[in-house]
Amino acid sequence: MLFHVKMVVKLPHDLPPETAQRLIADEKAFAQKLQREGVWRHLWRIAGQYANYSVFDVESAAQLNDLLFQLPLFRFMEIEVDALCRHPSSIHDDDR
Amino acid sequence: MLFHVKMVVKLPHDLPPETAQRLIADEKAFAQKLQREGVWRHLWRIAGQYANYSVFDVESAAQLNDLLFQLPLFRFMEIEVDALCRHPSSIHDDDR
Amino acid sequence: MLFHVKMVVKLPHDLPPETAQRLIADEKAFAQKLQREGVWRHLWRIAGQYANYSVFDVESAAQLNDLLFQLPLFRFMEIEVDALCRHPSSIHDDDR
Amino acid sequence: MLFHVKMVVKLPHDLPPETAQRLIADEKAFAQKLQREGVWRHLWRIAGQYANYSVFDVESAAQLNDLLFQLPLFRFMEIEVDALCRHPSSIHDDDR
Amino acid sequence: MLFHVKMVVKLPHDLPPETAQRLIADEKAFAQKLQREGVWRHLWRIAGQYANYSVFDVESAAQLNDLLFQLPLFRFMEIEVDALCRHPSSIHDDDR
Amino acid sequence: MLFHVKMVVKLPHDLPPETAQRLIADEKAFAQKLQREGVWRHLWRIAGQYANYSVFDVESAAQLNDLLFQLPLFRFMEIEVDALCRHPSSIHDDDR
Amino acid sequence: MLFHVKMVVKLPHDLPPETAQRLIADEKAFAQKLQREGVWRHLWRIAGQYANYSVFDVESAAQLNDLLFQLPLFRFMEIEVDALCRHPSSIHDDDR
Amino acid sequence: MLFHVKMVVKLPHDLPPETAQRLIADEKAFAQKLQREGVWRHLWRIAGQYANYSVFDVESAAQLNDLLFQLPLFRFMEIEVDALCRHPSSIHDDDR
Amino acid sequence: MLFHVKMVVKLPHDLPPETAQRLIADEKAFAQKLQREGVWRHLWRIAGQYANYSVFDVESAAQLNDLLFQLPLFRFMEIEVDALCRHPSSIHDDDR
Amino acid sequence: MLFHVKMVVKLPHDLPPETAQRLIADEKAFAQKLQREGVWRHLWRIAGQYANYSVFDVESAAQLNDLLFQLPLFRFMEIEVDALCRHPSSIHDDDR
Repeated sequence: MLFHVKMVVKLPHDLPPETAQRLIADEKAFAQKLQREGVWRHLWRIAGQYANYSVFDVESAAQLNDLLFQLPLFRFMEIEVDALCRHPSSIHDDDR
Repeated sequence: MLFHVKMVVKLPHDLPPETAQRLIADEKAFAQKLQREGVWRHLWRIAGQYANYSVFDVESAAQLNDLLFQLPLFRFMEIEVDALCRHPSSIHDDDR
Repeated sequence: MLFHVKMVVKLPHDLPPETAQRLIADEKAFAQKLQREGVWRHLWRIAGQYANYSVFDVESAAQLNDLLFQLPLFRFMEIEVDALCRHPSSIHDDDR
Repeated sequence: MLFHVKMVVKLPHDLPPETAQRLIADEKAFAQKLQREGVWRHLWRIAGQYANYSVFDVESAAQLNDLLFQLPLFRFMEIEVDALCRHPSSIHDDDR
Repeated sequence: MLFHVKMVVKLPHDLPPETAQRLIADEKAFAQKLQREGVWRHLWRIAGQYANYSVFDVESAAQLNDLLFQLPLFRFMEIEVDALCRHPSSIHDDDR
Repeated sequence: MLFHVKMVVKLPHDLPPETAQRLIADEKAFAQKLQREGVWRHLWRIAGQYANYSVFDVESAAQLNDLLFQLPLFRFMEIEVDALCRHPSSIHDDDR
Repeated sequence: MLFHVKMVVKLPHDLPPETAQRLIADEKAFAQKLQREGVWRHLWRIAGQYANYSVFDVESAAQLNDLLFQLPLFRFMEIEVDALCRHPSSIHDDDR
Repeated sequence: MLFHVKMVVKLPHDLPPETAQRLIADEKAFAQKLQREGVWRHLWRIAGQYANYSVFDVESAAQLNDLLFQLPLFRFMEIEVDALCRHPSSIHDDDR
Repeated sequence: MLFHVKMVVKLPHDLPPETAQRLIADEKAFAQKLQREGVWRHLWRIAGQYANYSVFDVESAAQLNDLLFQLPLFRFMEIEVDALCRHPSSIHDDDR
Repeated sequence: MLFHVKMVVKLPHDLPPETAQRLIADEKAFAQKLQREGVWRHLWRIAGQYANYSVFDVESAAQLNDLLFQLPLFRFMEIEVDALCRHPSSIHDDDR
């Protein structure tokens, strides 16, 4: 099942730079692993903002929840989640 | 170039049913034509809402603007547009 | 899978009373049918508001979407949907 | 009487990790005690968010207030409270 | 038990004047009846706005819900409800 | 003249506990003094929130301003003020 | 005593033009009468908006309420009211 | 030309008290100087809030900008600016 | 002096098409006249929305107000106005 | 292609002054370089606010994103981005 997720990253300005860099590197590695596994199906940067729109393909809401809580930057993110389903006008087989 | 678009449809309750049905049918035909042409790349229903998240792949902001203004339901929609670009952590070739 | 749904009903003041009464009666019948079938698991009135909090237990987001679009009052409602999952502190077997 | 409560947890990033872990453990123990006693009737995680929807069954608003103020994470939460009552379309005996 | 209620009245401009006047007169009679019975304990106009702050003293949230739904102007009101309890610094016997 | 005041308390998490306790004790003493003097006419806790609804009976807006600025917790509060007047449907002599 | 009032006028588009013109003329006459009497002390157009910022000097909140409810355009306005008092840094004798 | 300005002061709780006191004293001196010069034409405290409504009479938006940036408390303020012009119903010569 | 203006057009769905077309044609003619005269310095469509960002170069806020109120679509627009001034980092001679 | 960007700067009050000054100087140098190169086409201060409205002329959303992320003050800014296109009523050759 598909979920649309918006993530906005807000790093505290007093976070030590090396902590920030490590978290960002970990986040990237984790995001790429999930993309290779097919669960993080789409990932776009919103132009000019430290934010992304993503689409996840997961077994359940519980799996989505587990993945998002594991994100290294999770506690510095504002996250919005919307469940998706096939649009009656869609002709794309993978938009479901 | 890619744009993320959220469309929320709000049909006036006193719109004649036959007008509404014709508009909805026209909207569907137009949406499917644009999907076949590749410019309306993704189209998802937001579960439980008369709304969708879409991704458009267009030549320019002007083309996006022209397409959205041509939507048969355009004047009954609240539309939000965000320009997208490749996310530095993305490994998907088509998310750009 | 479980979804938390908030529905706020806004009937246009110029809706003919007999139309409103028929819609409300149809809504009640449909809501009770879904409750008997087990998909509309909880239904509470928010005290003092023409609104409810509900919990649905459905097969998929698509099923939830289909059910909500079939609500007789659907087009007069503002609806918010949140996917639920088991809370790590929950001890209730049915809260999942 | 029933209350619908939404709790969103916002832990300050500079809270010492051991303080956070202790608070979270205390919160879990307290939440499970209240669930066993029947006052915290439902507890769901909102998928992908450090937040929950809950339903409390208490003697009075005063009791609800006392319980929420005792939550170990209370001062790190944004809380919304809505009084519930039986929905006229409800057939569930326990939704009241 | 006490509830704090804010009511904002929004009469449609095309409501026939005689309908409006009848509703307003009915509302006044009903409000005064509830005040005499002691359930509508306080009623203040918010200066300069077609709105009021009220405090109700009822048996239950269900009773509050029933009363508010019976208000002749109910469907032209935006209503916010907050459950109240005794403030730990209060010395007033009737603020509970 | 009467004013309706909503106060929401937001204590910084890094405020030393003894400072917080002293401020809270001072706040309580000051609130009770003003209640005994009749200027803080009503004080209710909003159930489940570190917040209150209050009604002040003062000589002028200047007096209200002076009192609120003297609150020991003033700088940790978000305050909303509404001037009240007698509601045309009110029968309570003290709601003015 | 002084009140700061923001008024935003929203005329329904289907209000008959002669009704609108009469209301606007009545509003102007009433506003100028109140200015001459000294109770409507300041009246500014917010540039580019069908809205004004005003300062009223009245005996009480009740008088302010009465005056605003008498405005011919009252029911087509969104009104915000704030009580004012002398600013500790003010040197203007009439700003109180 | 006239500008309506709303200033809300939010002092960080960990600002050293002597810094706060110096800033507040400097702000007062600067505000009174500008009032004497006629550019800060009105200054009202919003009752019960650490905030003011002001009217400035300046040569240009650039001058307004320069003055506001020079306010000692500028970086602790949330500021809203609206350009004003003569209201067609105004009879006050100085409201322009 | 320069003003930044955002205009969002919201045409009522029951506006007769010929009225809408005439208003839109009048709006275009008026907008082009003001552009030729140099007072409407910039005019951009916000992609995908019936809205524009504009920059006006006028003698005064009063002139801006007069021009905006003369817009044929004025009463169907939501308008936001911000006064502009030269940015300290600007090197463009015409951005002032 | 053109983008309209609003930037609001929020410097933490505990940022060391020399850090702030260096960042501001770097920001100015970078902004002027981009203006000379023609990509930062317009830059206006919003009067009285630590904020600007800007128009960028870039090759792609990706280039806009890269430029904004390189801004020395980027992580202290709230940024809103809107894609622009030629307005059908525009006569300015450079507003596209």
